[in-house]
Amino acid sequence: MTAFSETIKETAALVETALDEFLPQRDGPLGRVVDAMRWGSLDGGKRLRPFLAIAAADMFETPRERSIRVGCAVEMIHCYSLIHDDLPAMDDSDLRRGRPSVHKKFDDATAILAGDALLTQAFEILAEADTHPDGNIRCAIALELARASGKIGMVGGQMIDIYAEQKDFDLAGVTELQRLKTGALIRFSAVGGGIVGGASDDEVAALSAYAEDLGLAFQIVDDILDATADAETLGKPAGQDAEMDKATFIKLMGMDGAKSKASALVERCKSHLDRFGAAAEPLKGAADFVFERKS
Amino acid sequence: MTAFSETIKETAALVETALDEFLPQRDGPLGRVVDAMRWGSLDGGKRLRPFLAIAAADMFETPRERSIRVGCAVEMIHCYSLIHDDLPAMDDSDLRRGRPSVHKKFDDATAILAGDALLTQAFEILAEADTHPDGNIRCAIALELARASGKIGMVGGQMIDIYAEQKDFDLAGVTELQRLKTGALIRFSAVGGGIVGGASDDEVAALSAYAEDLGLAFQIVDDILDATADAETLGKPAGQDAEMDKATFIKLMGMDGAKSKASALVERCKSHLDRFGAAAEPLKGAADFVFERKS
Repeated sequence: MTAFSETIKETAALVETALDEFLPQRDGPLGRVVDAMRWGSLDGGKRLRPFLAIAAADMFETPRERSIRVGCAVEMIHCYSLIHDDLPAMDDSDLRRGRPSVHKKFDDATAILAGDALLTQAFEILAEADTHPDGNIRCAIALELARASGKIGMVGGQMIDIYAEQKDFDLAGVTELQRLKTGALIRFSAVGGGIVGGASDDEVAALSAYAEDLGLAFQIVDDILDATADAETLGKPAGQDAEMDKATFIKLMGMDGAKSKASALVERCKSHLDRFGAAAEPLKGAADFVFERKS
Repeated sequence: MTAFSETIKETAALVETALDEFLPQRDGPLGRVVDAMRWGSLDGGKRLRPFLAIAAADMFETPRERSIRVGCAVEMIHCYSLIHDDLPAMDDSDLRRGRPSVHKKFDDATAILAGDALLTQAFEILAEADTHPDGNIRCAIALELARASGKIGMVGGQMIDIYAEQKDFDLAGVTELQRLKTGALIRFSAVGGGIVGGASDDEVAALSAYAEDLGLAFQIVDDILDATADAETLGKPAGQDAEMDKATFIKLMGMDGAKSKASALVERCKSHLDRFGAAAEPLKGAADFVFERKS
């Protein structure tokens, strides 16, 4: 086990504890929506987005109590999007992270509401004074998150993914789809961590450039894994892109072309962080991790 | 036509223009989600919530450019909740404000995403500096809106509405359901308007007391209308509460009891505003309007 895989696991454990505390269990119908929020957000995933937020903030010696809140906010947005995407009306996925998706465990109505509540709570967390004493900083983070996840961000990307005639997409089209659907939230993670840490505009721009390259590499690796891994390793159905004739980087660049593109992006994304010296090692490690991941 | 019905129409026109500007049309799949957001939010309703926000802010001589933004944010939350509530997995309503609901006009996936995007944009608007130069004020408003609309607010109320055994509800249970499902957002409207106007804690508390009574009166009148009006007047199906054996104030208090309770609440809610003198006339007019409305 490499040192980095230990680091990201430690951060994931901190995020798990914080999410658990943000979602205290209750009785009755109010408890049902909380249970569904917990099912859709706890005990899951690599927590890459919170890791990026926390590691970016760590470079500026930010108190972890603050950066973990930014990490939890972006993870709640990520998890709500998975819950809604999995619905029968959308991607109709029964399996998520190796377990029944929220609408299979509960039902469609509860999944819709649990997603809505996670989305709402992300902004509740950012607006609270514990995130940062300066309200202008908190609003700057909330604004970045809203833009990354809204109609010209993640939601827009999902619309393109569902409605565009993807079989005709060229590389620019696939790249734009990726930038919106998954890239915007990955970019937010690093940028939000920088802002809560008090980064200068130049430093935020460097984090943004890093995360844009990283997000694209992430999606290319996702396409590679969908084409090569099995469902058990992925924790979700594999081979769906080809089956649905979706536009992917594999289809447009070939497997070898996709692999070398991802590799080049990972190297380039790390170079954007050179100005931060040794403090950037965790974020550089995340880039290698994204490239080498198996699920 | 009374003076008040002119006032609320003027405010609704301002809100309509602002919402239209917040949702510029686009081409392609990104345009589709915007079209659905527009279908679900433009050209509709009395805009009671924005009116409350704007009228509350007016008492403190707040620039309308600010209070209209708070009004648009709460209206986007209200409209997203209607879009999601109308889905087949939830209330399965084909008709809203006399027109096809969003999932009938578009489809379920688009309705889910349009709702998500409106919810997200509400917080985007509040986080932007145009809402108020002081970030702490903007965050205070966003925090109130998130709490009013989240898992222990509007979403929680919708969970109770769907999952509780309502036929066994007593008056306390129906009142709690109402307080979460519709009351929290009405309370936010007045409180958010007060905060953007720089109201003191005492003044915000008076606005909150006003809006809590008003919200309850609003729901009682809603129950009365559902039991007595026709679908054409309501712009949505009538008589649904009895058909679904829902807990209503009519069922628990009788028609005469419900009418006198609503009347008493309207009088009491106005009394909370006496400290503001003549400046409170528009908000007092809103209370009479809620009581006298026919749809």
